[in-house]
Amino acid sequence: MFLTFEGIEGSGKSTQLRRLAERIPNAVITKEPGGTPLADRIRAILLDSSSQLDPNAELFLFAASRRQNVIEVIKPALARGAVVLCDRFTDSTLAYQGFGRLINLDQLRTLNAWATDSLTPDLTLIFDLPEEVGLNRARSRNAEAVSDEGRFEAEDLRFHRRVREGYRTLAVSEPNRFAVIDGEGEVDEVFARVVAEVTKRTELLR
Amino acid sequence: MFLTFEGIEGSGKSTQLRRLAERIPNAVITKEPGGTPLADRIRAILLDSSSQLDPNAELFLFAASRRQNVIEVIKPALARGAVVLCDRFTDSTLAYQGFGRLINLDQLRTLNAWATDSLTPDLTLIFDLPEEVGLNRARSRNAEAVSDEGRFEAEDLRFHRRVREGYRTLAVSEPNRFAVIDGEGEVDEVFARVVAEVTKRTELLR
Repeated sequence: MFLTFEGIEGSGKSTQLRRLAERIPNAVITKEPGGTPLADRIRAILLDSSSQLDPNAELFLFAASRRQNVIEVIKPALARGAVVLCDRFTDSTLAYQGFGRLINLDQLRTLNAWATDSLTPDLTLIFDLPEEVGLNRARSRNAEAVSDEGRFEAEDLRFHRRVREGYRTLAVSEPNRFAVIDGEGEVDEVFARVVAEVTKRTELLR
Repeated sequence: MFLTFEGIEGSGKSTQLRRLAERIPNAVITKEPGGTPLADRIRAILLDSSSQLDPNAELFLFAASRRQNVIEVIKPALARGAVVLCDRFTDSTLAYQGFGRLINLDQLRTLNAWATDSLTPDLTLIFDLPEEVGLNRARSRNAEAVSDEGRFEAEDLRFHRRVREGYRTLAVSEPNRFAVIDGEGEVDEVFARVVAEVTKRTELLR
């Protein structure tokens, strides 16, 4: 079983992923961009906010990192029966590059399919909350630590609004795969919502 | 005017590029993968022969490096009227990933067009010679210096034969753009062939 966690910065998806993984005995955790030594090198280029990265070059770097993670980590784990929990996956490309940067969605879907051999998550949790709330959370967190997501956080609020709306549009288009979870409130409250959705849609927590 | 230099390893294309550039006053030299600081970081990943790079991940990294080079270097140079000489370009992807690694050519052409906004060279010189000769040249050169092309050199001879045949097939399909130059012999002999072809096909050396 393959679960992905999506949402804007500061939506709480990474925290919730770790919480859920603690409840699943054979869970394998991975994330994008990254997940393998080679993908981590790509991640370092992507997340260097000083680099003047062209939007399409960025897209190809995400595709390269994803491909390597799928081949080295995700597919082997699924093949041996593990439950894979991935922090961002193909839907991040649609939300950020498609709805956010306005790159053609059909092109992005073609590239996603190519990078993953059309591997599709069984369940995708979208953590939804107002972009102002998410960005404030992300910024207060990153006052202490250098952010992995620094480059995207520097985008303006309108960009993040488009990304949030993009996720919601994706959710409507595939209601069986997507569960939209209200990301506002305390970690425990949000986790209760996660448990409810995962219990309703899978056998994982029974 | 945009000229690209193609061929298997050890074909002499980089040497000939530098020789030709000396004869063109407003020449801008660049190469793939690389050409910008960011693309050089990608190049470092690509050319690290110890990395277990998936063939499709490799392809996306080449696309990212190419995109950045096109946007930062090649297009601005062409826009100001420079003559751009590029060591490897889109045809390397067709020859190595398509004919060499047997990835679908139409997919590769789509990716090339996306990475370059369909920028096509005005003239592409293919340096042709038997793969054994090229690889022997490349290997004797790299006994002294660590090779940029080490990972591809490690491929077997059959791979390089497919790449060479790939270049020849491309040349037949677009005779107006491609000039196949015999790469065997001394540097000066080969350069005389380059001058003859460039003089026949362009105004650059008049």
